[in-house]
Amino acid sequence: MIGLGLIGGSVLRAAAAVGRGVWGATASAADAEAAAADGFDASTDVEAALRRAAERDALVVLAVPLTAVEEVLRAVAVCAPSCLLTDVTSVKTGVLTAARAFAPNARYVGGHPMAGTAESGWRAGDAALFGGAAWVVCVEDDTDLGAWAEVARLAIDLGSHVVPLTAATHDEAVARISHLPHLLAAVLAAVGADGGPVAMALAAGSYTDGTRVAATRPALVRAMTEGNREALLPVIDEALGRLGALRGSLASTGGLAVSIESGYEGAQALAAARQATLSGVRVALGAPDARDGLRALGERGGRITSLTEDTAVGEVP
Amino acid sequence: MIGLGLIGGSVLRAAAAVGRGVWGATASAADAEAAAADGFDASTDVEAALRRAAERDALVVLAVPLTAVEEVLRAVAVCAPSCLLTDVTSVKTGVLTAARAFAPNARYVGGHPMAGTAESGWRAGDAALFGGAAWVVCVEDDTDLGAWAEVARLAIDLGSHVVPLTAATHDEAVARISHLPHLLAAVLAAVGADGGPVAMALAAGSYTDGTRVAATRPALVRAMTEGNREALLPVIDEALGRLGALRGSLASTGGLAVSIESGYEGAQALAAARQATLSGVRVALGAPDARDGLRALGERGGRITSLTEDTAVGEVP
Repeated sequence: MIGLGLIGGSVLRAAAAVGRGVWGATASAADAEAAAADGFDASTDVEAALRRAAERDALVVLAVPLTAVEEVLRAVAVCAPSCLLTDVTSVKTGVLTAARAFAPNARYVGGHPMAGTAESGWRAGDAALFGGAAWVVCVEDDTDLGAWAEVARLAIDLGSHVVPLTAATHDEAVARISHLPHLLAAVLAAVGADGGPVAMALAAGSYTDGTRVAATRPALVRAMTEGNREALLPVIDEALGRLGALRGSLASTGGLAVSIESGYEGAQALAAARQATLSGVRVALGAPDARDGLRALGERGGRITSLTEDTAVGEVP
Repeated sequence: MIGLGLIGGSVLRAAAAVGRGVWGATASAADAEAAAADGFDASTDVEAALRRAAERDALVVLAVPLTAVEEVLRAVAVCAPSCLLTDVTSVKTGVLTAARAFAPNARYVGGHPMAGTAESGWRAGDAALFGGAAWVVCVEDDTDLGAWAEVARLAIDLGSHVVPLTAATHDEAVARISHLPHLLAAVLAAVGADGGPVAMALAAGSYTDGTRVAATRPALVRAMTEGNREALLPVIDEALGRLGALRGSLASTGGLAVSIESGYEGAQALAAARQATLSGVRVALGAPDARDGLRALGERGGRITSLTEDTAVGEVP
């Protein structure tokens, strides 16, 4: 583990809990000390941790802020140039591009567990954080499926199910369901607070829910939204278009039926997806079209729930 | 009680639970039957219920949908023309105007308990719904403070604290903290669902929270947002302005610091308001400036928590 904050610290704990040999390093002396005090093999020597991974052919997991990824990849290229490498950052295209540029010989497979809290740092970590979560493990045209299976196995060992997608498909989806929610929460929290003490005194459930993630540390929100600029801009435009249409409709006819019904249908779509009946499916990892098969499964809303030596076993709606 | 849905049914139960004599009528035969089956004095004869209120000088509470208010006010004018009258609808200026027009001799005081659920109908009601909630009780320049105190006493008896505001101030605040949250949730739910099965499969906490109220019955959301058009339009414009500025910033400089920090500060403002230390305050209801005193208290984020015969006792941040 490189990085021992909320996510890195949770992966380290969870991997240790299922019996994996783990060690970690982080630029944060506070997190390294806290992890060591909890009995983990942790230090601030990132290069030594990477060299040890190279010696043992261990899976290296980058759990550093997006802004620190390039620097750590440069260290990977020096200390563990051909290592098995994944990451847990919330944007995937940028990290893929950086991995190709700065650690071109690493067997890199992008990853993103869809789990987190508003907290940060080692102390906020929790071995149970990934239970029941979706964990995207990226499949590009040149992805080594042996490396992919190793990363998918880690995610499944930690209690998640695996969603195979390209980095680009991941980034487009998280723009909609993670980055836009953070930005709308920020807008709502600012407009609400502009209403002063009266607005704060009357705020109830709809406002509390709608602004909850606005309390996330700004640096984290900036890293994920600014780092996903290309996919996020058209999604913001969709939101602007819908909000503008709604405004126009209220101003002209006074009616909001279309906008409110669309939102209601969207809410029903989420509920339906969560209640869908799933059918079993298997993808042979040695087949020539295995990458297409994995991605097609992910794009249909499916998931991998276990792995045999040569087969990914999952389910699709 | 006129109207025995979620809110009306909850008021009826809660008022009965504190020993008040209550009876109800509703246009919904299903709700009337369900209330009667639960042992309450309930019927579908709204006019008879109003005549009985006139005979006994009872407080009439309108808990009908906003779209039915005018019709019920016309019945009030015929059956209980000078009754003590309040309502629990989510928009106050429109009801005030309608009360002045259609039941001009009623001693009307607008009310709005900031409590609810996504459910509806008698069966969804709960005597505990109002515990700890803010209940706006409107103070206009011509409000009869004796009538105001009667309505405030009902709210306090039911476990709420009272926020005295004009109808216009109420409507402006709820546009920010209730109506805009519903509209942004609708926009988010529509943009998210447009991402198809992948987006639904990856949706986690930020999306679930941000879209929760999009699952509210569309007719309810339409009634409150369309009914508060005048106050809501400038608030939607503020949101559009902030979202547009954010979009421009991401497209040009790539930075979102200002927008995200504003949202974070907004979230801190809500947390600060909820943790504020409160000081006791008293407003003598017989004083010439009592209406100003009550409204000033509400505008500072204060609340009335009890009433003696001639004094409102409360607290302000």
